[in-house]
Amino acid sequence: MAGNLLVGQSGGPTMVINQSLVGIVQEAKKSEKIDKIYGALNGVVGIMNEDLVDLRQESEEKLEEVACTPSAALGSCRHKPTREDCEKIFSVCQKYDVRYFYYIGGNDSAEAAHIVNSIARDNNYEIRVFHIPKTIDNDLRVTDHCPGYASAARYVAMSFMGNDLDNRSLPGIKIDVVMGRHAGFLTGASSLARFAPDAGPHLIYLPEKPVSLDKMTEDIKKVYEKYGRCLVAVAEGICGESGNPIMEAYADEVDSHGNIQLSGTGALGDFLVANVKQRLGKGYRVRTDTLGYNQRCFPGVYSEVDAREARMVGRAGVQYATRGEVAGSVAIKRTGEGDQYDSEPFFTDLENVAKVTKPMPDEFISSEGNDVTEEFLRYVKPLVGKLPQPALLEKK
Amino acid sequence: MAGNLLVGQSGGPTMVINQSLVGIVQEAKKSEKIDKIYGALNGVVGIMNEDLVDLRQESEEKLEEVACTPSAALGSCRHKPTREDCEKIFSVCQKYDVRYFYYIGGNDSAEAAHIVNSIARDNNYEIRVFHIPKTIDNDLRVTDHCPGYASAARYVAMSFMGNDLDNRSLPGIKIDVVMGRHAGFLTGASSLARFAPDAGPHLIYLPEKPVSLDKMTEDIKKVYEKYGRCLVAVAEGICGESGNPIMEAYADEVDSHGNIQLSGTGALGDFLVANVKQRLGKGYRVRTDTLGYNQRCFPGVYSEVDAREARMVGRAGVQYATRGEVAGSVAIKRTGEGDQYDSEPFFTDLENVAKVTKPMPDEFISSEGNDVTEEFLRYVKPLVGKLPQPALLEKK
Repeated sequence: MAGNLLVGQSGGPTMVINQSLVGIVQEAKKSEKIDKIYGALNGVVGIMNEDLVDLRQESEEKLEEVACTPSAALGSCRHKPTREDCEKIFSVCQKYDVRYFYYIGGNDSAEAAHIVNSIARDNNYEIRVFHIPKTIDNDLRVTDHCPGYASAARYVAMSFMGNDLDNRSLPGIKIDVVMGRHAGFLTGASSLARFAPDAGPHLIYLPEKPVSLDKMTEDIKKVYEKYGRCLVAVAEGICGESGNPIMEAYADEVDSHGNIQLSGTGALGDFLVANVKQRLGKGYRVRTDTLGYNQRCFPGVYSEVDAREARMVGRAGVQYATRGEVAGSVAIKRTGEGDQYDSEPFFTDLENVAKVTKPMPDEFISSEGNDVTEEFLRYVKPLVGKLPQPALLEKK
Repeated sequence: MAGNLLVGQSGGPTMVINQSLVGIVQEAKKSEKIDKIYGALNGVVGIMNEDLVDLRQESEEKLEEVACTPSAALGSCRHKPTREDCEKIFSVCQKYDVRYFYYIGGNDSAEAAHIVNSIARDNNYEIRVFHIPKTIDNDLRVTDHCPGYASAARYVAMSFMGNDLDNRSLPGIKIDVVMGRHAGFLTGASSLARFAPDAGPHLIYLPEKPVSLDKMTEDIKKVYEKYGRCLVAVAEGICGESGNPIMEAYADEVDSHGNIQLSGTGALGDFLVANVKQRLGKGYRVRTDTLGYNQRCFPGVYSEVDAREARMVGRAGVQYATRGEVAGSVAIKRTGEGDQYDSEPFFTDLENVAKVTKPMPDEFISSEGNDVTEEFLRYVKPLVGKLPQPALLEKK
């Protein structure tokens, strides 16, 4: 089936989402079936407004440079399309003779693709609709892990390494807030920072395990008594005893997905610091950093595995469509462990990825709920790659 | 004069303060006049408690690794020694036959060295007392710039580059808070992030220029109307119209230097976001990040010039002492500009560096007070080194 291709990027940008975009464009150029290669500006919003650009006009050299640039080169959006929006998207596909539609994003993007595909089917319009996975949250089903995750994980690990070193210099209690609304994979990656037996993070709190502020303070006190300092990793989505996000009381914005605003504010960290200070009393130096948007867009820090795989899933999506698959998503299978790590893409249906996300499995979370397990470390380490190795004085 | 050497590290750690430490140790090893090389744990606190380690026991290989590790390898402190403390420090120097005393830090460390030196003189105790400059604030007098600054500046520039890219993907108003209590050098370095004519930061607010929240909001609105987005750099020490730091109302801690706590909290950013939202009304996406301790301890991101110069000033301090200078500090002179940048150390008296700091000079600040000048860019660029070059789609 011959026609044009349309690609859009959705949700929070990542260090490698442009790798997927470029993978799609490069593979599309190889196919005789694909004529124009449209890029939609700002995701589905750009499709509905017919803000399209011609990606064939970009030089190969420029595409390679864009692939290595963090952020969404086409622009992104946080708009979750309604049924009506999807009908509009479909009509734009018809108008522009789009026969290959790619949406790079998380589970909501897979759901949007799923709806567009069903509308096309109802209208007997032949089209290939593919979701290309992207999320630093690493919370998509089916796939072993998600493009975008490992680079963010690398930045998080390096931040905690630096913060541990900083906290050795001027000892105290330090609470770092990491992105992650429902899934703790990114916060868990802070564990890669442990370059020495006494290195932090000493405690890791994940959205999957509600924690009382009393328990958290007790945990911190124990570590502090042992080391004279304590570095804590907290997911922005952590829940209190009630099971509701602690940030619920502080967020003043709700997005179109019904999510409260967690990022782009230091409120959770400041709240936790105030609580620890109040519970422990005076005499403790307690500080917080919210790692912020650098987690997904810091230039120059990325995982090589992640960059390669992000390109790979983009290419695979085009290959699946041109070989005849009608609609689907691309997942990643791990084909080697540890130093022998390797991976390959595989096809999966859109409904397997759409809507519902995947939390961190129980075997990755310590029994006390304040750390990750060795099994998680084996899972995450090969994705993130070799980290800097800080050195301490030996005779100190 | 023969005897032992004692070195301590003070204040906030940096990416390269261990370069200076290692420079001192390596140069001391070359001198026949210097016997033991003591390291004081946690700065002057460790001296007073006689928490000393023998740095001669560290292998050359380990020292080189430590030099490349961010943070203060000996531990640091924020204690500003009183006259009595300095007498105690002096008595420890006597007890351990310390004839070469090095304190790596900012202006307060120079002042401490100055007092110890005068006590020694009053007691006819022969000793060399040197201050080795270190501060990410870049606010020491005499020297062209301070070791520690350029690496922090590099991290800040890369953060703003990433945040600009992020803000292009999901447009809005983004306010990033940068370290800097009285001096705007570090916040000003955000200007290095401007990789394209429309790239942020679009506005830069420095501690040297008080700003009203009305004016700031007007500035932001203008940029937003032009680009549909706005990235703002704000120093943590910015002052309101009254001339007092905006954070004054939010800080709940004051350190032994009489300084209110500015870092380790997201309060200023959240306050500014709330103000902008209130003044601009609904319909704007406004976010903030406080760049935090990563600015001084993020592993792997550093300026090569900075690392080299930090080593250089440590070495120079020992050379000055062994050639006969009694007490002083090491400053840096620029001996080439732009691509031809080079530098050399020179001797200066302690009182030239102690106590009073240096703000950003007027010629580095734009007339409107919301940006830096070309002159500042010429000053800072060679220190920070080549930055990543993000790529945008050409035909977008």
